[in-house]
Amino acid sequence: MQSLGCDVAALNTVQFSNHTGYGQWTGSRVSAQEITDLFQGLKQSYLDDFDMMLSGYVPGAEALEAVGRIAQELKTKAKKKPGSFFWVLDPVMGDNGNLYVAQDVVPVYKSLISHADLILPNQFEAELLSEVSIVDMPSLGRAIQVMHERYCIPHIIITSVSLAGGDDPSAPPPSSLCVVGSTMTSARRARAFKIVFPAIDCYFSGTGDMFAALTVVRMREAVWNTPGGDLVRTEAWRSADGVDALELPLAKAAEKVLASMHEVLTKTCLAMEEGLRRRRGEGVNGDDKTARLLKSKAAELKLVRHVDSLRNPKVEFRAVKV
Amino acid sequence: MQSLGCDVAALNTVQFSNHTGYGQWTGSRVSAQEITDLFQGLKQSYLDDFDMMLSGYVPGAEALEAVGRIAQELKTKAKKKPGSFFWVLDPVMGDNGNLYVAQDVVPVYKSLISHADLILPNQFEAELLSEVSIVDMPSLGRAIQVMHERYCIPHIIITSVSLAGGDDPSAPPPSSLCVVGSTMTSARRARAFKIVFPAIDCYFSGTGDMFAALTVVRMREAVWNTPGGDLVRTEAWRSADGVDALELPLAKAAEKVLASMHEVLTKTCLAMEEGLRRRRGEGVNGDDKTARLLKSKAAELKLVRHVDSLRNPKVEFRAVKV
Repeated sequence: MQSLGCDVAALNTVQFSNHTGYGQWTGSRVSAQEITDLFQGLKQSYLDDFDMMLSGYVPGAEALEAVGRIAQELKTKAKKKPGSFFWVLDPVMGDNGNLYVAQDVVPVYKSLISHADLILPNQFEAELLSEVSIVDMPSLGRAIQVMHERYCIPHIIITSVSLAGGDDPSAPPPSSLCVVGSTMTSARRARAFKIVFPAIDCYFSGTGDMFAALTVVRMREAVWNTPGGDLVRTEAWRSADGVDALELPLAKAAEKVLASMHEVLTKTCLAMEEGLRRRRGEGVNGDDKTARLLKSKAAELKLVRHVDSLRNPKVEFRAVKV
Repeated sequence: MQSLGCDVAALNTVQFSNHTGYGQWTGSRVSAQEITDLFQGLKQSYLDDFDMMLSGYVPGAEALEAVGRIAQELKTKAKKKPGSFFWVLDPVMGDNGNLYVAQDVVPVYKSLISHADLILPNQFEAELLSEVSIVDMPSLGRAIQVMHERYCIPHIIITSVSLAGGDDPSAPPPSSLCVVGSTMTSARRARAFKIVFPAIDCYFSGTGDMFAALTVVRMREAVWNTPGGDLVRTEAWRSADGVDALELPLAKAAEKVLASMHEVLTKTCLAMEEGLRRRRGEGVNGDDKTARLLKSKAAELKLVRHVDSLRNPKVEFRAVKV
């Protein structure tokens, strides 16, 4: 976000030695009380003039409630000036059928989503929120429609959709993934688009966070670049009903985000083998556990050295209508 | 550091709502035990392959000892490969005659400095470490010599030197400041240079941290750019005795650091008045305390929007021999 020009204030919900993909870590979580205290500290010094908020991994129900209260307070404060605050909520709960937060976090997310402006669930999280089993493009469309209606959530992107496919002609071809996004109309109808991109055969960590951070910046940019200038002063940056799915700022934002993601992931994957070779050359080798840890390190997203891919990605994969 | 291409792992010693220059804040300090635990976490997953370490504000003696143990462990590990690890220690203790850490932090710094490669005291901190009262350039030179000898510290930069001047022809002219640096010879003799630059009439916070962070990157770059390629494999990157003060990588690094500093501070100062005006226009005004808080916010270093000044500063102020 900083490399794209945003002034960011980070409120850490954990301080861990490393991400949990390594399978072992030290450090601690921040309590709900400390989250609340930190925001009070910002407020008392007039440092709460945020125009966007991104919430990500929050490891417990109480802490998540504290984060939710911050977002709701900022939203209430912004009521007088529509469009002056926008909450991007990444409902981090799990992946591929596995929850990686406590069970009681799920209902808290369900209660918060109606206050958010844009949510970024992965396929599993979209199933949890919509209670629709996603097996093909039609059921994915139903899940999106349910979320717009039930939570009145204006913008949705379902990240990394992977469908079994089989005989379904609307499923993405093998070895490709897609994201599906939608901005609802005033009648809460979905306006959905998808972007298909090639899968990279590598296990990465942090791609969800990278997607969310880039989306914050690119959504803002796309809204600011919308002709007319009214959208920035419209509640939740919701486009007028006449705007086509492919003309949505959300679609334009997602195209740029995926372009950056694809470049960085491709370059990370290329560097991985080299990184592993180098560490082996340094004499670090041994058992399976060591090999697994070194592989996790080699798969760390190479963001800093590919800042140009963040700033000026070449858009190759375009949104198409669903 | 990231904008200049470094992959950085941050170990936060505090999580505060804002810097303490506001006079009020919330949040908490990290305990010595947690600092130690976090480093153990990095080690157990082979994530401790750092080639530089920067330590800054550590608010208590025990926590500082924990930070010192990490640096010493990394140094010991690097013994077999001279030059493969470099510790930049900013001995943050106070400014302008006032301590802003607990009294018992001072002896801990004194015990750690002999393990560091480069220290960045301000004038007051240099007095504390050398026990020399700095009133003019000769006494400043003595303070540097004492630190090289007593602590065997290879590189020193004294940041923001402000001397009363008066009749002393060697003092910087009024309305200017200088930094003074030195890399010791094998006989622990100082090789000192100074860089004079115009003072900006503005109260900033965080300039010490900005100086330190830029110095880490620019020192590494200057050493890597030294012809011959031997310096990077030399213990503590200490230049051969025949190298003149003005040819030191430390001097070249300091020139670039100050160029970036001067550009960012100038631009921050220009934006300050505008920021204050805008907040007043938003109806935030009132008592003295409010005015002071808003001024602190307006004086926040504008780093993100002036990243070009960090990456490609124009060097105007050159090192001269002391």
